[in-house]
Amino acid sequence: MQEEIQGTPLVPIDKIVSLSKRRGFVYPNSEIYGGVAGFYDFGPLGVELRNNIRRFWWWSMVQMHDNVVGIEGANITHPRVWEASGHVENFVDILVDCKKCKRRFRIDHLDPKNVEQNKCPACGGEFTEPRRFNLLMETYLGVVEGDRMKTYLRGEACQNIYLDYDNVVKSSRVQIPFGICQIGKAFRNEVTPGNFLFRQREFEQWDLQFFVHPSEMDKWFDYWKEYRFKWYQTIINHKDRLRFHEHGKDELAHYAKKAYDIEYRTILGWQEWEGIHWRQDWDLSRHSQYSGQDLSYTDLNTKERYIPWIVETSGGVDRTFLNLLLDAYEEQPDPMGKGNDRTVLHLHPWLAPVKCAVLPLQKNKEELVGVAKDIHKNLQRFMVTQYDDIQNIGRRYRRQDEIGTPYCVTIDFQTLDDQTVTLRERDSMEQIRIPISELTMYLLDRVTWK
Amino acid sequence: MQEEIQGTPLVPIDKIVSLSKRRGFVYPNSEIYGGVAGFYDFGPLGVELRNNIRRFWWWSMVQMHDNVVGIEGANITHPRVWEASGHVENFVDILVDCKKCKRRFRIDHLDPKNVEQNKCPACGGEFTEPRRFNLLMETYLGVVEGDRMKTYLRGEACQNIYLDYDNVVKSSRVQIPFGICQIGKAFRNEVTPGNFLFRQREFEQWDLQFFVHPSEMDKWFDYWKEYRFKWYQTIINHKDRLRFHEHGKDELAHYAKKAYDIEYRTILGWQEWEGIHWRQDWDLSRHSQYSGQDLSYTDLNTKERYIPWIVETSGGVDRTFLNLLLDAYEEQPDPMGKGNDRTVLHLHPWLAPVKCAVLPLQKNKEELVGVAKDIHKNLQRFMVTQYDDIQNIGRRYRRQDEIGTPYCVTIDFQTLDDQTVTLRERDSMEQIRIPISELTMYLLDRVTWK
Repeated sequence: MQEEIQGTPLVPIDKIVSLSKRRGFVYPNSEIYGGVAGFYDFGPLGVELRNNIRRFWWWSMVQMHDNVVGIEGANITHPRVWEASGHVENFVDILVDCKKCKRRFRIDHLDPKNVEQNKCPACGGEFTEPRRFNLLMETYLGVVEGDRMKTYLRGEACQNIYLDYDNVVKSSRVQIPFGICQIGKAFRNEVTPGNFLFRQREFEQWDLQFFVHPSEMDKWFDYWKEYRFKWYQTIINHKDRLRFHEHGKDELAHYAKKAYDIEYRTILGWQEWEGIHWRQDWDLSRHSQYSGQDLSYTDLNTKERYIPWIVETSGGVDRTFLNLLLDAYEEQPDPMGKGNDRTVLHLHPWLAPVKCAVLPLQKNKEELVGVAKDIHKNLQRFMVTQYDDIQNIGRRYRRQDEIGTPYCVTIDFQTLDDQTVTLRERDSMEQIRIPISELTMYLLDRVTWK
Repeated sequence: MQEEIQGTPLVPIDKIVSLSKRRGFVYPNSEIYGGVAGFYDFGPLGVELRNNIRRFWWWSMVQMHDNVVGIEGANITHPRVWEASGHVENFVDILVDCKKCKRRFRIDHLDPKNVEQNKCPACGGEFTEPRRFNLLMETYLGVVEGDRMKTYLRGEACQNIYLDYDNVVKSSRVQIPFGICQIGKAFRNEVTPGNFLFRQREFEQWDLQFFVHPSEMDKWFDYWKEYRFKWYQTIINHKDRLRFHEHGKDELAHYAKKAYDIEYRTILGWQEWEGIHWRQDWDLSRHSQYSGQDLSYTDLNTKERYIPWIVETSGGVDRTFLNLLLDAYEEQPDPMGKGNDRTVLHLHPWLAPVKCAVLPLQKNKEELVGVAKDIHKNLQRFMVTQYDDIQNIGRRYRRQDEIGTPYCVTIDFQTLDDQTVTLRERDSMEQIRIPISELTMYLLDRVTWK
């Protein structure tokens, strides 16, 4: 099912699932117990990639923006939050069962023709009455029956930002326009989790809620729309797989003047990567109303009092993780036709889980090993570095290519003569010689975002 | 209730609660809805401090140890995990109610005399029969009644490490002895959450599980015990408030030869900060047994096959966060007696949420402001920097002292003459002049761990 459009083959998800398990990016959660649908664990390389993705987002969104601060809220909140947000009432999937073959379907996943005829697409049987299932995961606080409070794991992370909005204003000397960012888990009892990390029951979101005066809404909406698009462009190889999808009138929330998805094209088609949303005063007004707390803002200069409007940018760590692997994966045939094919992950050097591999040409030459270990020890303080002395150099390069390591440093006999090493770049496979004394700065300059 | 021992006053928790809310370290979760006991959100400064704490732990434990890798597992796992771990059976508090005044008590919090006499300490009434309450928080997967799977939010994060152990061995080329680290949330339905961040219902743990051959258990146990103690020593001011507590025979798990807590002394007394545990083959054996998967290890050289033994070091992000604030907080009277008292957080510069504040001497002098903004813009790429031009310099220094900012840079009229700035250090309040061209390197050298 490998599809080819515009000359670049789209990577089957299976290839990524397999690489992820084999090399320690992602494992099925609780696999020794048969797994739990919709849950994954991240292995040694996966967690480094995730951390880099998160840190780069945080750095660019929070650290580099004077008018943006971060928060980190709890996964569990007061149950009233989810009434105010509308999730208790509306965060539902509508399901039907086939009376004959007992298969279960989400109505929005069925062909409209089947819905209209009320006939199962698998066997032609009749459907049961549609039933509504809420996607919020429940839990209970307090230990004694009758005294327990039913609440929910957050169905979206951003609610904490509205909850903490007033505290941030009072404690952080921010003034409108300003934003609050958060990275955090969300939980959804998906009826049909699937496509690997694409639709999980536990996943991680990143949100910016940017608070503005209504008169500046258009300006800031456009700013963040462009900023986020460029941000994604920066970290992918296939720029032609990124586009905006503007929401049509039928897709817009009632309070939204406009909305855009940033979409990325994979083997699954064009899929949402991030949403840029015009939330107006909806969230703060609802929480004002439900909590009885006045969440309006007073302009220090004009003394105008108003509920701020919100531009939201909302995406996900997991979807970024998956899209970046799909974007980076390539199986390259040996250009010389000698069977030296390689699988390579063209991950951006900023995000690659391992920045540099240190390779002594031979593992049984003490002089080479001594120098290699010194270099490794020094580099390790500044970046994630792997020391590898198993098998021949070609094999070791291939192994690093497959996990996206942008640089390999080989310590060979010339090193002992002139204190230079071979530096091999992943994508071009070009090799240069560089003095050991310049190595750290050379690498840091290329693997650090700026 | 401010206690003084060995000359250093212990800080009341209330001072930290108040500072945390006022300056944006910590807010009560869902506060606009009246809050939920045992849950907190972290504000703009809190999230930066937490990130620094996590990153420094990760850097020293994972990045700097060739034989340690990281993982990041889901909060929700297969329910059988919690049967194998013993939590479903044993993770309980035992409660009694007073029949007369209806007060509720945890038996292990009662005076043994009251338990023996079966009389309420508040009113002398009789107790009900003791009842067992499990601390695991439940949730349900799947959407249709009868088809739902009851499972639990993880009561301790480390279980994911055992679940992923075999996948890590197969995918990461690690060989015993090696360790797996994780930072992640845990959830406990505490009967009596309290003391601010000290006992929460949602909190974050860091764990190392270090896998060894049984013959090397003592050696590695000692290595990690010393390493972790030194790690905490490095980041606190009051070294005399840190000690080991060796578990007595009655405190030890049946499989443990020894165990140590690293304790820190606060106004609450000596409390556990981290545990170093001798877990033997308990966890992997239990999961082998419950899952039916063979989790034994084969030594590549000797071909010996065995279940690895485990040294665990387990602590918490939240407790570290709280202890560091308690350790760092000081109210300093003006040594000149002129009323310039200050509150200062002596946080380690590596961990301080803001590394440097950039302060133009006057906000209405364009030349000063221009230089200050350039300096801010440059520094910001490398570290969290605040630009502040509100009120006089003294006030601004005090404001930064209170949030632990180690350095303030003041741009004054001399700057325009000789391109130097005043650099003021938080703890000593000493000021030096330094060329702008040397500023970034000077600061980076002091705020970056190494």
